[in-house]
Amino acid sequence: MWGGRFAEGPSAIMREINASIPFDKALWRQDIAASKAHVAMLGAQEIVSTEDAEAIRRGLDQIAEEYARDGVPEDWDLEDIHMTTESRLAELIGPAAGRLHTARSRNDQVATDFRLWVRDALDQMDGALRQLQLALITQAEAHADSILPGFTHLQTAQPVTLGHHLMAYYEMIARDRSRFADARARMNECPLGSAALAGTGFPIDRDATAKELGFDRPTRNSLDAVSDRDFALDYLMAASQCALHLSRLAEEFIIWASQPFGFVRLPDTLSTGSSIMPQKKNPDAAELVRGHAGRVIGCTTALMVTMKGLPLAYSKDMQDDKPPVFEAASLMALSVAAMTGMVTDSTFNTARMRQAAELGFATATDLADWLVRKADIPFRDAHHITGAVVKRAENDGVALDQLSLEVLQEIDPRIDERVFKALSVEASVASRSSYGGTAPDQVRLQVQAARALLSEES
Amino acid sequence: MWGGRFAEGPSAIMREINASIPFDKALWRQDIAASKAHVAMLGAQEIVSTEDAEAIRRGLDQIAEEYARDGVPEDWDLEDIHMTTESRLAELIGPAAGRLHTARSRNDQVATDFRLWVRDALDQMDGALRQLQLALITQAEAHADSILPGFTHLQTAQPVTLGHHLMAYYEMIARDRSRFADARARMNECPLGSAALAGTGFPIDRDATAKELGFDRPTRNSLDAVSDRDFALDYLMAASQCALHLSRLAEEFIIWASQPFGFVRLPDTLSTGSSIMPQKKNPDAAELVRGHAGRVIGCTTALMVTMKGLPLAYSKDMQDDKPPVFEAASLMALSVAAMTGMVTDSTFNTARMRQAAELGFATATDLADWLVRKADIPFRDAHHITGAVVKRAENDGVALDQLSLEVLQEIDPRIDERVFKALSVEASVASRSSYGGTAPDQVRLQVQAARALLSEES
Amino acid sequence: MWGGRFAEGPSAIMREINASIPFDKALWRQDIAASKAHVAMLGAQEIVSTEDAEAIRRGLDQIAEEYARDGVPEDWDLEDIHMTTESRLAELIGPAAGRLHTARSRNDQVATDFRLWVRDALDQMDGALRQLQLALITQAEAHADSILPGFTHLQTAQPVTLGHHLMAYYEMIARDRSRFADARARMNECPLGSAALAGTGFPIDRDATAKELGFDRPTRNSLDAVSDRDFALDYLMAASQCALHLSRLAEEFIIWASQPFGFVRLPDTLSTGSSIMPQKKNPDAAELVRGHAGRVIGCTTALMVTMKGLPLAYSKDMQDDKPPVFEAASLMALSVAAMTGMVTDSTFNTARMRQAAELGFATATDLADWLVRKADIPFRDAHHITGAVVKRAENDGVALDQLSLEVLQEIDPRIDERVFKALSVEASVASRSSYGGTAPDQVRLQVQAARALLSEES
Amino acid sequence: MWGGRFAEGPSAIMREINASIPFDKALWRQDIAASKAHVAMLGAQEIVSTEDAEAIRRGLDQIAEEYARDGVPEDWDLEDIHMTTESRLAELIGPAAGRLHTARSRNDQVATDFRLWVRDALDQMDGALRQLQLALITQAEAHADSILPGFTHLQTAQPVTLGHHLMAYYEMIARDRSRFADARARMNECPLGSAALAGTGFPIDRDATAKELGFDRPTRNSLDAVSDRDFALDYLMAASQCALHLSRLAEEFIIWASQPFGFVRLPDTLSTGSSIMPQKKNPDAAELVRGHAGRVIGCTTALMVTMKGLPLAYSKDMQDDKPPVFEAASLMALSVAAMTGMVTDSTFNTARMRQAAELGFATATDLADWLVRKADIPFRDAHHITGAVVKRAENDGVALDQLSLEVLQEIDPRIDERVFKALSVEASVASRSSYGGTAPDQVRLQVQAARALLSEES
Repeated sequence: MWGGRFAEGPSAIMREINASIPFDKALWRQDIAASKAHVAMLGAQEIVSTEDAEAIRRGLDQIAEEYARDGVPEDWDLEDIHMTTESRLAELIGPAAGRLHTARSRNDQVATDFRLWVRDALDQMDGALRQLQLALITQAEAHADSILPGFTHLQTAQPVTLGHHLMAYYEMIARDRSRFADARARMNECPLGSAALAGTGFPIDRDATAKELGFDRPTRNSLDAVSDRDFALDYLMAASQCALHLSRLAEEFIIWASQPFGFVRLPDTLSTGSSIMPQKKNPDAAELVRGHAGRVIGCTTALMVTMKGLPLAYSKDMQDDKPPVFEAASLMALSVAAMTGMVTDSTFNTARMRQAAELGFATATDLADWLVRKADIPFRDAHHITGAVVKRAENDGVALDQLSLEVLQEIDPRIDERVFKALSVEASVASRSSYGGTAPDQVRLQVQAARALLSEES
Repeated sequence: MWGGRFAEGPSAIMREINASIPFDKALWRQDIAASKAHVAMLGAQEIVSTEDAEAIRRGLDQIAEEYARDGVPEDWDLEDIHMTTESRLAELIGPAAGRLHTARSRNDQVATDFRLWVRDALDQMDGALRQLQLALITQAEAHADSILPGFTHLQTAQPVTLGHHLMAYYEMIARDRSRFADARARMNECPLGSAALAGTGFPIDRDATAKELGFDRPTRNSLDAVSDRDFALDYLMAASQCALHLSRLAEEFIIWASQPFGFVRLPDTLSTGSSIMPQKKNPDAAELVRGHAGRVIGCTTALMVTMKGLPLAYSKDMQDDKPPVFEAASLMALSVAAMTGMVTDSTFNTARMRQAAELGFATATDLADWLVRKADIPFRDAHHITGAVVKRAENDGVALDQLSLEVLQEIDPRIDERVFKALSVEASVASRSSYGGTAPDQVRLQVQAARALLSEES
Repeated sequence: MWGGRFAEGPSAIMREINASIPFDKALWRQDIAASKAHVAMLGAQEIVSTEDAEAIRRGLDQIAEEYARDGVPEDWDLEDIHMTTESRLAELIGPAAGRLHTARSRNDQVATDFRLWVRDALDQMDGALRQLQLALITQAEAHADSILPGFTHLQTAQPVTLGHHLMAYYEMIARDRSRFADARARMNECPLGSAALAGTGFPIDRDATAKELGFDRPTRNSLDAVSDRDFALDYLMAASQCALHLSRLAEEFIIWASQPFGFVRLPDTLSTGSSIMPQKKNPDAAELVRGHAGRVIGCTTALMVTMKGLPLAYSKDMQDDKPPVFEAASLMALSVAAMTGMVTDSTFNTARMRQAAELGFATATDLADWLVRKADIPFRDAHHITGAVVKRAENDGVALDQLSLEVLQEIDPRIDERVFKALSVEASVASRSSYGGTAPDQVRLQVQAARALLSEES
Repeated sequence: MWGGRFAEGPSAIMREINASIPFDKALWRQDIAASKAHVAMLGAQEIVSTEDAEAIRRGLDQIAEEYARDGVPEDWDLEDIHMTTESRLAELIGPAAGRLHTARSRNDQVATDFRLWVRDALDQMDGALRQLQLALITQAEAHADSILPGFTHLQTAQPVTLGHHLMAYYEMIARDRSRFADARARMNECPLGSAALAGTGFPIDRDATAKELGFDRPTRNSLDAVSDRDFALDYLMAASQCALHLSRLAEEFIIWASQPFGFVRLPDTLSTGSSIMPQKKNPDAAELVRGHAGRVIGCTTALMVTMKGLPLAYSKDMQDDKPPVFEAASLMALSVAAMTGMVTDSTFNTARMRQAAELGFATATDLADWLVRKADIPFRDAHHITGAVVKRAENDGVALDQLSLEVLQEIDPRIDERVFKALSVEASVASRSSYGGTAPDQVRLQVQAARALLSEES
């Protein structure tokens, strides 16, 4: 296909390193769609005859049927999905097939196909993340009152509600969706018609192909259009942030499912046993989600490094754009689905969670706050007094609300019996009713607002 | 400051590893601003008395003056900018200083300070990138007609105009700016009032502090608010993409400035000589910009890895969020400024560029297109004929338009004398007048549209 | 210093982006040492006169004293440590200073200096890691019999001894040390005398300078010598692996120190409290070590990306080699010291650990193994029987060794009363006496071997 | 296979995310080999009967034949290669198959299999890199006298010989091989017998299995043995450095093959043409090699991130160790083979290279050196004088050796006619005869030494 300048064909190693058909066959639907839009435009602009345009369209439809039915053939000599399809088209309709390539090049063709593919991946992520949000909301509502220890540094800090905790992930996922949405809006421009790098002299109608393929507009600069893989990086970067969020949730499920914590019973459907230890129930799905974050970040790194320092316009290095994106998309689809199942089907041991919240002096801050509010003591002093109270409780081996008023007043005489109300975990969470706080009523408000938002979308 | 539970103070190694003041002192302006907003709200809500609020405000103003004048003192025992300021406040106004910390924690405080800092960095990037866009537009307009070889695979492909080439970078920078803008919109929510992790029982007014600090609204979930560093990653990821674009432009300047290319004469002000080779004029600034892409990507990787798998809420690992962001921001500021200077002050050798475009059979595609349009030959066949023509010219050691009509007709009799019009580089670029193409008129349209857009902003 | 070809000096932005003196001043000791070795050789080879060589040597000694006393001045116009020192030398001894630069260039000079610095860093890591190994051995020996649950998937798997667990980290650190040692052996070649890139015509004696600076030999190819930063990457990669090991140990300390686990009481000296929650004792040092793994990996990524695709020989991008190495070295020094302190000064709650090991049916595998050995049942069947036993114990809410023989025989009649010996955690760990296993005697053997090895080193 | 504790089987998403058989089937040869070694030892130790051991061995041999002939079946329910093989073994030989799993677990099994696979990959890399070294040596010898401009900052610096330049890559590859060799030595310990994590009570002989599988010794700590993936990272890190070296060589081929340089004519067998530009001959193989560096680094990043912060012992995240290693190994095999072909089959345009070396005042350093040696001028002054000479030649538009003696003496009277000898490119390269320098004789010495070294290996 390169004309007569090459005395020798590619070596075996060249055929192998050069062939992208083993992975870019995933683009076949996009490639057919873009070719159909292109030839329809060529026909409408009278760049190719109506007959040829129609023959090409029919041929492409037949090829699409073949691919759907039999898969895409992998012939390394045909290098990629574009040549594979064009070669089959020539078999089907003869020389007229050659006219399809008028006013375009593989450079703008692959840029268009890959954008379409990434756009679909963005849409799929959005739908899948919406399901995860719904799962989080549902569990958050069911557990708006369930108390567990809130940790900082994985040390018991203050009691929080499980609903509140799960809604934190709702927020992360909401940001992820907004990131994918931003990526979609930014990338939705059509490179088709940029040709090899410089545009074309044929009287093409780029608005027509852009519109036909669902793009908002054609790209503005042909050199940029064939050299740009920002859209792939935007996808990967948004995926990386999402994978990080999922890795955090996965870590929590893994820790919560450990015997010493015992906060959660994972669904059998997302756990495995051991080939050697019959008592095991392993949080494999959560671990794989956590591990996948590594691979998604690796994919992102890969494409960043590959793009670094490439001069304009298209360089073959850019063929390495697809494997990382395809891999990340597959890992993300699995990860989001697995975490949605995990959130939906896990059973929380609320008694165990509450008990853990009561241990560890989780309401010490409440005591300090009480001292500030009721006894008008500067916070730093209240903190110091509370430290002394905790030390006493620790030495005596009792919970804070098991210390007697005498003992408390020994430490600071300004403490009175109203203090005991502040020291229960229920009182503690109920009191944190500032906007965005952990109080059950706040959580229910957050859930309602989230549910309303998601309802509007559908 | 941790009360009486600690029998021993930190070890020397702990003091060193724990102290963030060596770098987080960069947050002092943001810390003072956030504290002032917080205490104003505490006063308005009558959580602290008007007198105390006023004393704190005055104290903070004085500290700001001291920092601006003398720098921020680095006392490792005070760990971070928050404790440093609070400790100085206590010296200045006595115990009332303790009331500033009512209804907040270092967790929401640092989240707020760092968001404010990143928001400033986003705004600075936007302004700096706008200058780079102006520089690109100016040169692009001046060189709308200057012809150079357009490369793919760094092989001469088709003639393009320098204006067109530079406008490709305008587009990349436009996407970068939109990415920073998206990051800004997403992150502009105020964590202050989330307290340690669970919110607070004090009757705070989070809308008031959010508004005072220029945020669009308060964050919706306190656990998320203190655990979230998405905004820092959004900044780093947008910076990475921008750094990649700059690395590509830098690579081109480096190649163009090499003796065999000789397309550009770099400004003395952005070059260096050699300590041993007196004839050298080295593109150091461009190389450093290209190298800095590595470090910016390294910063992004660093924070991704650090955040992976962290359970909620705040973990001390997150203290490692700032060095990568500060480093990237500094590298980006230098890189954008250097490239702006390079674009503005470089002198292009248009004769050399044009000559290179004429070599290498850069108009071969034009010949193929001519065959399609004038002789109605399918593109794939035209490509083949052209390959034969190129081979002949190569063998004869002449340019395409130096082959005689006889020779051309020997290869394919459908070629006639009108073909020669298609073979000059001027004709070639002029012909590529499709939307976004390299034709000088198209470039001028792109420049005008860009200039109009930038004018609207100011 | 670039001679008369530059009409204009560098712009402000160029001075800032170009200056490496803010960080490469860290190389001053290496720079002085290499210059002294170089001038001694120049003198011995009679390339410079004895008088000049002596004057230069004395000047360098004086400069070293000044730097040690007053620090290295940061003058951006002098760019780097090499020019800073040479400029000061000229002030001190006049024009003879210029002869120091005979037969060398900044390219081989910085390659030599940086190698020397990295070699020191390798040696420091080796010493620090040896201390960590000693700390691990000491605790491992003290806890050769202490039982804790061994986890896989963070689920209780089989009982192990703490000594065994800590010795796993001894092994990791041993590999780290061997990695640093490999790096040292590979990099210990002297680039000095490679000059700018091509070697020199002066009759230099590269063996002499190599020997003087403690290198095994001179590098073999001058182009490679000035273009090579493998040694820096070797350092960073070994550091990354080590940081990953430390991150795993840190994660375990963090989990073990959580209230639900309660396996360990961290030293006050390596913990912090909370500014708002008086009961907190946070494992900050461990979290920072875990977080630092992110930054060290970021440093490694940075240099890999920077080096990608650089043509020979020296490019200015390579100036970005030092900040990542310096940062990683500093983070690693702190991390290793902190973990050494953590291992040494933590107090393990052996009662709590043992209790956790008894829960969770940790000896289920022992039951299965018993069935294989005593009742000659294929392992897969034994696994199945054990699964049924565990299910029964779980339903009855008892430990495995609290099930009666009748109940066990109901499940499988081949079980007899000897089985109970296999079900205690002590019996379990004692039984795993295969080479490398968790049995206390095995652990003591491992400790002895390790101690012997470390003794030999000193 | 997990016994009776699981009420429900895995969900569809769990089956998919959990199944490693799609990729770990690549381990089948290693898995069979390790199982055979294990069962031979079990038989020898009388842990299983001779009959059972023999039946298992025969069954494994048959399975190996089936896999070799028909491929490994992918049944997600059997999860991985280990269960797939064991399940087939049970079909073939009945219940005795269950005895194969005595005294081992999938944890030590996969650690063993994967080590064996990585060891093979290390050996294959070593062999392939040796071929690349031979190719480099052969071309280096052929071009020991061919002169091209040596670049720093991609600016003409000093003339060098192509042989010297290629030998720089020989050195890099030598370091790569030493890195793979170090990795092999460090990893060659056998984890088999570590069982799930704690070792085993069966009287196994770990030395026997280690020896049988070609390991130097068994691993020393069972917890470490099943948790360790250092060997995979060692492989990936060495591969990353090698990929970086190849990316630099690829970059040079791409630049050298550009029309303005024209130093090299790439082999047709490793180039492609264009579907739209018939004159193109694209260095695709070199670009793909350069691009692959990105993906190899991405693989390394992936595994580093995945391993970060994992508590002991085995976690399922570690299943994500294989895809990056497999991908990197495949990319590296292709990259090394492609570059070997490129080095062997490229044709260098020595006339063009020499001409480029003569331009750009490449011998300016020679002039400066001449001034030092012949006229006894301090180097810094000589540099300045040379700068003035270059400026004059630049203004007059002539090469250095085309300036008359009068003109030179006008600039500095100490210059005499002997200077002209120093100004030819041949004289320049010949003069740089210091050890490791670019002089043809030095290059020939380097080549001879390298050839001798490689001969010893075979």
